Order: sequence, then C-alpha cells, then structure tokens
Amino acid sequence: MKAARSYGPGDIRVEQIEEPVAGEGQVKVKIAWNGICGSDVHAFLTTVPKYLQGTTPDPLSGESLPVTLGHEFSGTIVSVGPGVDGQKWTVGQNIVVEPMISCMKSACPACSIGSRNLCPLNNFIGVGGWGGGLAEYIAVYTQYIHPLPNNVPLDVGACVEPLAVAWHAVKRSGFTKGQSALVLGAGPIGLFLLKVLQSFDRTALIIVSEPTVLRRQSATKQGATHVIDPKGSNVSERVMELTAGIGVDVAFDAAGVQVSIDAAIESVKIRGTVVNLASWEKLPVIDIHQLLLKEIYLTGTAAYDRVHPELLEALEAGKITGIEQLITRRVALEDVVEKGFLALLNDKDNQVKILIHP
Amino acid sequence: MKAARSYGPGDIRVEQIEEPVAGEGQVKVKIAWNGICGSDVHAFLTTVPKYLQGTTPDPLSGESLPVTLGHEFSGTIVSVGPGVDGQKWTVGQNIVVEPMISCMKSACPACSIGSRNLCPLNNFIGVGGWGGGLAEYIAVYTQYIHPLPNNVPLDVGACVEPLAVAWHAVKRSGFTKGQSALVLGAGPIGLFLLKVLQSFDRTALIIVSEPTVLRRQSATKQGATHVIDPKGSNVSERVMELTAGIGVDVAFDAAGVQVSIDAAIESVKIRGTVVNLASWEKLPVIDIHQLLLKEIYLTGTAAYDRVHPELLEALEAGKITGIEQLITRRVALEDVVEKGFLALLNDKDNQVKILIHP
Repeated sequence: MKAARSYGPGDIRVEQIEEPVAGEGQVKVKIAWNGICGSDVHAFLTTVPKYLQGTTPDPLSGESLPVTLGHEFSGTIVSVGPGVDGQKWTVGQNIVVEPMISCMKSACPACSIGSRNLCPLNNFIGVGGWGGGLAEYIAVYTQYIHPLPNNVPLDVGACVEPLAVAWHAVKRSGFTKGQSALVLGAGPIGLFLLKVLQSFDRTALIIVSEPTVLRRQSATKQGATHVIDPKGSNVSERVMELTAGIGVDVAFDAAGVQVSIDAAIESVKIRGTVVNLASWEKLPVIDIHQLLLKEIYLTGTAAYDRVHPELLEALEAGKITGIEQLITRRVALEDVVEKGFLALLNDKDNQVKILIHP
Repeated sequence: MKAARSYGPGDIRVEQIEEPVAGEGQVKVKIAWNGICGSDVHAFLTTVPKYLQGTTPDPLSGESLPVTLGHEFSGTIVSVGPGVDGQKWTVGQNIVVEPMISCMKSACPACSIGSRNLCPLNNFIGVGGWGGGLAEYIAVYTQYIHPLPNNVPLDVGACVEPLAVAWHAVKRSGFTKGQSALVLGAGPIGLFLLKVLQSFDRTALIIVSEPTVLRRQSATKQGATHVIDPKGSNVSERVMELTAGIGVDVAFDAAGVQVSIDAAIESVKIRGTVVNLASWEKLPVIDIHQLLLKEIYLTGTAAYDRVHPELLEALEAGKITGIEQLITRRVALEDVVEKGFLALLNDKDNQVKILIHP
C-alpha cells in the first residue's frame, strides 16, 4: 500500500510498504481522511519532541525512522482480528482513532489515574510509530478507536482529534455557560477552540485576537463575537472595553509568543484562568505579580483526557457546527508534501485544515 | 504620643504626634505589639508599591508623607466612639486589626464580590495612611478589628496579620488533609506557611527548601518533615525521592527568585499547584511547557480575603502552635530603626519576627 513516511525533518517520502493485517485485538481500517497537524509541519522544519530522530527508537513503540506519519484520521473497518468483540466492531463501520499511546504502567503517576495525556513517555500513532493516517490502511487496537456517529461525515471525523484538544482545554479551563473567553491566535487550534466554546455556550462573548487579516476574517465568519488586531490596538484595553472593565473569565493562548501571553494575563478578570495550548520557541517572561494581584491561574493543557465520547456525542447532537468550513483543501496522498506540508508553510493564512485522502 | 513615621525610603523618625480620638464608628486602641513586615524593610531600602512616595497622596486615604508605619498589630480598646455597638466592643478588650482598606465602590470587580484584597486601589493601615501600629494609640473603624480570643496573648495577636497571609495562601492552594507540600524559602512567610500547613494536617509531609543554615534549623525546629539545602542538592530530585517519584501536591514560593520558581514547577505532581507569595525584583522566565505537560497551575495569592475569623478560631482552639517561638526579638519603639529595621537587614538569618512595643 501507499504510505507517507518520515525519514527525519524535511524528508517525507510517499512509498510502497506492506499492507498491515489485523492482529489479536485489532481491526484493519481503510483510512478515509487524515488532517495535517501544526506539529507535523513543525517537525518537517526542525526537531520536535516525540517525533523520531536519527536511529533512536521510540521507547514505547520500539520503532525508529522511517515511520508513517498522520495522527488525525478517520476511516472504515475492513477486517476484524481475532479476539475482537464482533458485536461492537463490524466491517463497514466508520471510526475515528484516538492516537495517544502511553506506558500504562501501574507505577506511572499519570497512567495509574487514567490521565494518559500526562504520561511522560506518551506518544501518538503516526508520530512515534504504530502506523499512521497518511497511508491506505492501518491495523489498530480497538481500545484506541471510537465509533463515528452515522450523521457525522468521515472528513469531519478526521477533525475529531484536534477538536478533542480544544474540547479538553475548554473543559479544564472551567468555562461554563454565561462566561466570556478570549482566544489568542486564530490558526487551526484557535478556530477549533472557538467552535468548542460556542458549543458550550451558543451566546457567549468570545473575543479572538489575531494579527493576520485572513485569519481574523475566518474567526468572524466562524462566529467570534469580536475580533481584535493585536498589531493595531491594545488587546487588554479592548477586552476591558468589551467586558465593562471586568475582563474575560478565561483566555486561551494558541499563539505562543510573549505578546500573546502578556495580553492573556492582562485580559482575564480577577481569579480568571489563562490556558496555554501553544508550544513555544522561546520561553516567556511572566508578570508573576499580576498572577498574585489578580489571583489568576496560569495553566496549560496537553492533548486530551478521555473526552472523545462526549465530543462525539456533541457532534452527533449537532452542537458543534461548521467544521467542514475549516477544511480548506483536500489533497491526494501522492501530493502530501507539495500541496499539504508546503501549502501549510507557504500559504498558511489561507489554510486552516488540509485533509489528505489516501 | 510617640509614633514611628516614614518620610520616605531610609527615613523613619520616632517623634511626638497628636494622640487620636475615637470618632463615629471607631474605637481607640492602645497598641501592644507591632511586627515589622518584610515589605516594611523593603520600603526602607527602596520604593515599593503601596508605600507612599514624595508628596503624592494615597488615593484612598488622601494622606501623604509622613505617615505612621506598622500594619501587623494587636492592642486593647481604651475608648469607644459614638455609634459603636457597646455590646460587641468594650473598653479593656484585646483586639487585632485587619488593616486592609479598599475602595468599596459597587463598580469595583473585587470589592463588589467582597474580595477586597484584589481591589486595584487597596492599601493598608500603616502603609498608605490611617495611622499605624508603630505608635502608642490608633483610632480605627470597628469593621477593621477582630476580638482576640482570651487564651491568645497579645504578642501572638501581632502575628495574626502575617498568619492570615499564610492561611489565605494555603486555603487557596487547595491543600487538604493527606496532601504534601513544598515551601521554598524559610523566612517569616515560609515559616508561617509551615505553621498553617501543620494546622491543616498535623501529619502532612512538608518539605522546606532554604539556602541558609540558621533558617533551615528554624524550619526543622518548627516541625518541617524534611529540609533541603538548594545550594547543596537538586530540590526537585530530592522532592521526587521523598514522594515516591510523584511530586508534592502544592508548592509555595516564598523566596521569589528564578531558582525557587523553577524548583516549585519541577517539584509539583501532575495537576498540582504552585502558589507564589513572594514579590520579585526581576520577573521570572517560566517553563510554560511544564505547565502544559503536567497540567499544573501557577497562581499567586494577595494578602487575605475574609480569613481572620477562622484563623482566630484555629488559634483559640490550639491548632496553630509555637508562634511565640518565631518572635525572635522584642524592641521598644524608640529603637525601631536600630534594633528593628537594621537588625532585619543585617542579622536576618537570626531573626524571624521582630515585635515592637510602643
């Protein structure tokens, strides 16, 4: 079968590899769509934690380069391996993969409480091995798959993984109906945050700060209550104007630069929460006196922790809408580098989520 | 009467001023003891927020320099002004002052929810005006005083204000029975934190990290489970050894330097909390990826928010013990600069709390 495999930064090759077979406890899935993640693009440029380098194997998968990429994907079960519950998993069924793999050791403080996202060794299918979504097929253990509701199309299914990142962040922020939020950065994660926040409260005040025009237009189109250009105005002053001088309940940093975290801290109300989802090239200086004077919380969230079932329910119930509008391009696997990775690098303001069809 | 008044950094004068009279809603208090706070010492050296400078008046008190210093104090009611509830407040009664003054405007996001400690304008009796504890008498509105329980001596009463800072921090950290804590810095706030943590859980694992020998000895004497010398060993590695590789539930930064906040962040467990109580000369760089990978909370606490009644109850019930051992020196008002402020600067490792007796 065809698969896009990484040989290290800047070297992704679409090549023929052996088709997998569903082993004990696994199903074989024909992959429908796979989204390219910002981390994939980052790892195409430079070394990124969790992405394999050189000849060093992943401690959990034992695999080393080359590995098949792709961890945001949906597909259809084409065969069921031995030991799989045939009542639950059937040929022809659409599924999404929750690609996180963790150590599952009883001594692991994270895995032992079920929060596999905080396992120091965790990694992802399509990053650290175990196959990936940028291929025609994958064999995957059923513990890592979820049924895709019948009324949710497979392309939206490929967006469930990044939506789960946003869902987990919103949930852990404590955001509830009647509250207000600021989202800094309207790239894919910022826009998915916007969609999830809307699903938590359809009438919430949601302010998006984003320096590029096209992305601000996306945020407006996707229903942000207000958009701010941080290069043209003072973000926290504008937020204070929009919140009667009180500030927002929660602020999400999906940008990861000094000015974004500063604006987040200045814009939240007393005892509000700032959640970081970004990865940072340069660690920020934090105005820790503001944390004290306003008693605000600064935290971050990592991937997702058992949120897929409720997220899929929300999608099935129509509480999250317009995801298909965030799919800006669909590309064949053969063109994954040219029309996928390079488009996200060179045409990023026009692109939100690019899906690959193998 | 005698009073120690600030004329600005480095200039405190003990001089004769007019004795106050209890006005409408006030009582006149003969001051028994007043503790010197770290902020007082800091303001003796340099300009410090809230402490008055030059001819600029405090926006709430309207007063400008010179002002009487001292905000950690206890005393005895000697007269009761008109309009004061004579059943509740009587001559001869011992009291402590909760010195925080805030704007109390309905438009203030903090005062309107009762959290006066987060009022942007708030200040303290003995800092921004309104008299102070470094004097023979003060006239104070009864809304700012609390009865001192009969079994709590007046010198311990003068420590209620800094104890309230520690109590509020421990409460907001979420620390509960069965949890573990790391305290960074064993100065007065660090040691008061230790006492309060013990009162929340007598058998808790409480680790104190402190670079100076004498302060480590104080922490040991005051019942810290373990003390660490951060110059001689890696704090977070030692904490991990002491917590079976899990980390502490909460860490308190009462030091306010880059290495202390780094150690705090590295030492808390997944989803643990780091609370900053220090004021910082140089803002820290925060390893924000750790906040994300462990989903920990970084916050700070400001003074206290309606904790005096429960703290005084805990003192009355004997749940906080050994406070008198933290009073390392008692000084007459005339000697407040030489034996008070200068001792805290030049002999700080031997001093915890110095009380002044007017």
